[in-house]
Amino acid sequence: MTLGLVAPVRDGMSTGGRPPSQFALNPTGRVVIAADLGASHSTIAITDLAGSILRESREQLDIALGPEHVLSHMRDSAARLLELAGRDLADVIAVGIGLPGPVEFTTGRPSNPPIMPGWNGFDVPEWVHHHLHVPVHVENDVNIMAIGERALFFPEVDDVIFVKVATGIGAGIISGGRLQRGAQGTAGDIGHVRVERGAGTACPCGNMGCLEAIASGPAIAASLRGLGLDATSGSDVLDLVRQGNTLAIQAVRQAGRDIGEVLTTCISFINPSVIVIGGSMARAGEHLLAGVREVVYTRSTPLATEHLSIVQSQAGSNAAVIGAATLSIQHALSPEGIDSMIAA
Amino acid sequence: MTLGLVAPVRDGMSTGGRPPSQFALNPTGRVVIAADLGASHSTIAITDLAGSILRESREQLDIALGPEHVLSHMRDSAARLLELAGRDLADVIAVGIGLPGPVEFTTGRPSNPPIMPGWNGFDVPEWVHHHLHVPVHVENDVNIMAIGERALFFPEVDDVIFVKVATGIGAGIISGGRLQRGAQGTAGDIGHVRVERGAGTACPCGNMGCLEAIASGPAIAASLRGLGLDATSGSDVLDLVRQGNTLAIQAVRQAGRDIGEVLTTCISFINPSVIVIGGSMARAGEHLLAGVREVVYTRSTPLATEHLSIVQSQAGSNAAVIGAATLSIQHALSPEGIDSMIAA
Ligand SMILES: [Zn+2]
Ligand SMILES: [Zn+2]
Repeated sequence: MTLGLVAPVRDGMSTGGRPPSQFALNPTGRVVIAADLGASHSTIAITDLAGSILRESREQLDIALGPEHVLSHMRDSAARLLELAGRDLADVIAVGIGLPGPVEFTTGRPSNPPIMPGWNGFDVPEWVHHHLHVPVHVENDVNIMAIGERALFFPEVDDVIFVKVATGIGAGIISGGRLQRGAQGTAGDIGHVRVERGAGTACPCGNMGCLEAIASGPAIAASLRGLGLDATSGSDVLDLVRQGNTLAIQAVRQAGRDIGEVLTTCISFINPSVIVIGGSMARAGEHLLAGVREVVYTRSTPLATEHLSIVQSQAGSNAAVIGAATLSIQHALSPEGIDSMIAA
Repeated sequence: MTLGLVAPVRDGMSTGGRPPSQFALNPTGRVVIAADLGASHSTIAITDLAGSILRESREQLDIALGPEHVLSHMRDSAARLLELAGRDLADVIAVGIGLPGPVEFTTGRPSNPPIMPGWNGFDVPEWVHHHLHVPVHVENDVNIMAIGERALFFPEVDDVIFVKVATGIGAGIISGGRLQRGAQGTAGDIGHVRVERGAGTACPCGNMGCLEAIASGPAIAASLRGLGLDATSGSDVLDLVRQGNTLAIQAVRQAGRDIGEVLTTCISFINPSVIVIGGSMARAGEHLLAGVREVVYTRSTPLATEHLSIVQSQAGSNAAVIGAATLSIQHALSPEGIDSMIAA
């Protein structure tokens, strides 16, 4: 069995029992449902067991509509995509879901998600299992983006940090070849680290000077409004950058410097090989990256950055669904997953 | 076989092959040599396979004397301790060594160790194997302190950061139950992260405002000299604190705040359950810890610190040798280690 795109993210699964390679499973016959449920969009994909996307749909969908509504939408989209792909629900061996907030690893339930009213503690795995009758793996969106980007472009690299810069700012950490979730699943939550330039700026979290309060898409837009420009969202900022607006370009580069300030500490702390800058604001391209690199390379010791690459996300909007697919495939093909398929 | 103190630090060993529990090995008959080779001291211990210290010696020894001298001293001390313990070199199944600088994980060779002239690239495992004929595991000292502290006091906790505050400042990171070395083995190297109060202070590394340049033992001593006090080392600072000197107490507390500034970012980033403050300056007790806690709890989001403990090292000067013993025992009792014992 060749797993193609699927890199070996070993994330704490038991390694006892029957190895998958000894088990006769036809990977081309089976598929997984991968869902990237963002704050305001939903991407659903059907992939084969090599992680290749067979069918995909992307729609506007407000996560605040609540879990019943959003998950029903996911189920209906998946059913339609399966039909288009000439597959059946019986071919689905697992579901992988990314959510835009912290997820309790042991239960797969969202915990304290600020932008997800109605989701707190909702038993997503139970709902999916009840409606689709297959195992589900739920994960924070930044974590699945890290896994997806690595699976596609850095399968041999064990130490990768994926930084999502969008409405919020967060990181997915792969260290020693494993996804690092932290004790409560909040690892990578760097949006509320205080940065120098933030002094005096209040953040909705209650603290002053948080990274997110000055370097997220909405924060950059707010700073441009202060300069008399017409920008209400990160997307407006990207438009201005594309038009070559100097103030917008400078603001994006400064946001990169602020992010770089926090990343400098993270780099000294965890010693990664690759930092990937992704999320919607990464579409500003070299301007954001240049700011990050400028600060990281100025402030770090040579030893910390000697072998470090800082790159833009290449997976782009596909990183998350590929990551969700990768995670669910790995769990399905773990010895426990295969045992449960035989038993079913 | 009961491993007693030895916590399961799973650090990337293969899990294939023969499990140790199926192999008839008498743990009480065999021992390991554990060495904590510091900048200016050397602690050598003989432990049983439960990680309990049978004999231990601690001496002044300058690491700059070079690898041949220091390792010969280690070998001679170990031979003497084995004799005192009524054991023989044939009872030794492994050696664990901690060094005060970065160690290349794959080769066990020190790399770019600033305070270790003569050690750069020296093949420590080859030397030990040639002279003692057993496998050796070499590790950065802060990493073995983290492993030792966890083995003794937090065997059930998967996310522990050990911060050593002494002549330098560094961290050993256990995340997801595994030691995190980073891509080049420099993970935890937080001494050269820039802190706010450091502005204008030059660091020997070439950057300005590094944590180590204002919060290490020698840096605190220098600041006290500036206030007219007689302090040339961290040890003098500790004496002044013990005497109740207010300026010394304030300086130590401020160093704690500076360290807390860097740790705040690390905590948001990796989401640990326990932060252990160790190293010689931790003997200043609550004063250092109070500064760390003050900044961490003020600046962090409630979610990041809700389940976080910040504690003083309880293992003290034993953390490193226990960690070196733990690591070498785990490797010796891994399937590969047992295979090599049978083959020998
Ligand atoms: Zn905040
Ligand atoms: Zn420095």
